[in-house]
Amino acid sequence: MCNVVYFNGKFSKFSEAMTNIEDRGYQFGDGIYEVIRSYGGVPFKLREHLERLERSAEGIRMYLPWSIEGLEKICMEVLNRSKLSDADIYIQVTRGTAPRNHTYSEDIKPNLIIGAKKAKDLSEKREHGVKIILAPDVRWKKCWIKSTNLLPNIMAKQQAKEVGAFEAVQYEEDGTVTEGGSSNVFAVFNGTIVTPSLKHNILPGITRAVIIEKAAEEGINLEEGALNVEQLQEADEIFLTSTTMEVMPVVRIEEKVVGKGKPGEIARKMQEVLLK
Amino acid sequence: MCNVVYFNGKFSKFSEAMTNIEDRGYQFGDGIYEVIRSYGGVPFKLREHLERLERSAEGIRMYLPWSIEGLEKICMEVLNRSKLSDADIYIQVTRGTAPRNHTYSEDIKPNLIIGAKKAKDLSEKREHGVKIILAPDVRWKKCWIKSTNLLPNIMAKQQAKEVGAFEAVQYEEDGTVTEGGSSNVFAVFNGTIVTPSLKHNILPGITRAVIIEKAAEEGINLEEGALNVEQLQEADEIFLTSTTMEVMPVVRIEEKVVGKGKPGEIARKMQEVLLK
Repeated sequence: MCNVVYFNGKFSKFSEAMTNIEDRGYQFGDGIYEVIRSYGGVPFKLREHLERLERSAEGIRMYLPWSIEGLEKICMEVLNRSKLSDADIYIQVTRGTAPRNHTYSEDIKPNLIIGAKKAKDLSEKREHGVKIILAPDVRWKKCWIKSTNLLPNIMAKQQAKEVGAFEAVQYEEDGTVTEGGSSNVFAVFNGTIVTPSLKHNILPGITRAVIIEKAAEEGINLEEGALNVEQLQEADEIFLTSTTMEVMPVVRIEEKVVGKGKPGEIARKMQEVLLK
Repeated sequence: MCNVVYFNGKFSKFSEAMTNIEDRGYQFGDGIYEVIRSYGGVPFKLREHLERLERSAEGIRMYLPWSIEGLEKICMEVLNRSKLSDADIYIQVTRGTAPRNHTYSEDIKPNLIIGAKKAKDLSEKREHGVKIILAPDVRWKKCWIKSTNLLPNIMAKQQAKEVGAFEAVQYEEDGTVTEGGSSNVFAVFNGTIVTPSLKHNILPGITRAVIIEKAAEEGINLEEGALNVEQLQEADEIFLTSTTMEVMPVVRIEEKVVGKGKPGEIARKMQEVLLK
């Protein structure tokens, strides 16, 4: 099968899995999610993703009736059934299904989706680097919660797509860079990597955390701090990270060339060591 | 039938209407909605709601393939089939169903829900007035779009419910009042009604607009301006408006009594004239 999904206990293709229109995930965006990459049948940082899912659940006061071990098991079952080696695993939990009302009762039962599809191949983009645009950050104030309220993100990314760019990097009203529509941002200045700290309104990316770890191992200086759009324009290198992008070099900001106009040395190094 | 819903051309009960889990409304909150009240089989301000739906669609760059007249027809068909006299009509449009990807292609076909249920009876609450809480506004910056990204709203309203309050009135970091989780806010000072102007990050409520009109007709002074939490605490009267609440007097802010602790004269007047 090229794709398989578990939905509340049943396995099927994505195209066959249906939910009621009064699923709160559908009417209120009352849900959270994760995307995990599997390489050669082994999910990368699965435990970290599931722990973040738990923190997101706490963030919206949703009770998850599954243990991390239980969720891991379903992920592996889905992966095995898919027979995919390199897969994107998608997990979504919504608060449950109930007649429409903003508030909910404590005994509502969450809906769980865990699905696997063939991983998108971004290797060519990683090889050559991508173009980004800059877009105002209009999102809510709790972006550390990985919720399905993704309308601002898709609008920013669609805007990027329409000018042939791969990602929209968002900034606050004062010019402070936060993150991409679905990625964290890193810039390099004189050999030092700078990335917005978690004090900014960003998602604590799993790949972001790996980069911080790997930079230390490689003896590359890395600062979690603040970055504004002017500084970003002057960076020697820029790269994005996410589960599916891994380490994605940025070679243009809109029409402006970044650094030497090709993936930088540090981005290459990080690509190389990310999965090691 | 006590409830009936139209979903992409088919009529059923809400409990029977299913959508695919890759509906973008489900995975991204990529949707907009409206709620319309029907009285004695006649929807109140239906045209205004549908026009706002169109503006919301433009706001998220979603193309609606239906005319306002076409949508009106479906609303009336649903209402007739429901045989309900006093109904809440729910309209939801999502961008469509497609394999998960933040960006979308231009030819994606939207999913349309139009359903009717028996209207909730809030007359007793309107009679006695309700308690509200104050909650920080953590929503995105485009609240004029009536989108299904409602996670911050439900969190605020749930917080209210848990302390026995009916609504959470939200305020910005500087104390500026915006609106309730699902309502607009009005306060009365020495006979003048004050409500946050549309320059603030609020939804342009249909009932709000009717109140502004009716106040003028009744010769009551009304200012669209700014309101902060301190001022709200000192108001002679407070009331909320929404399609389902109509005009809802507020008699307590958390433990503090508002005005004389019972619905005020101007709120009563507005209740009386709202539907005339």
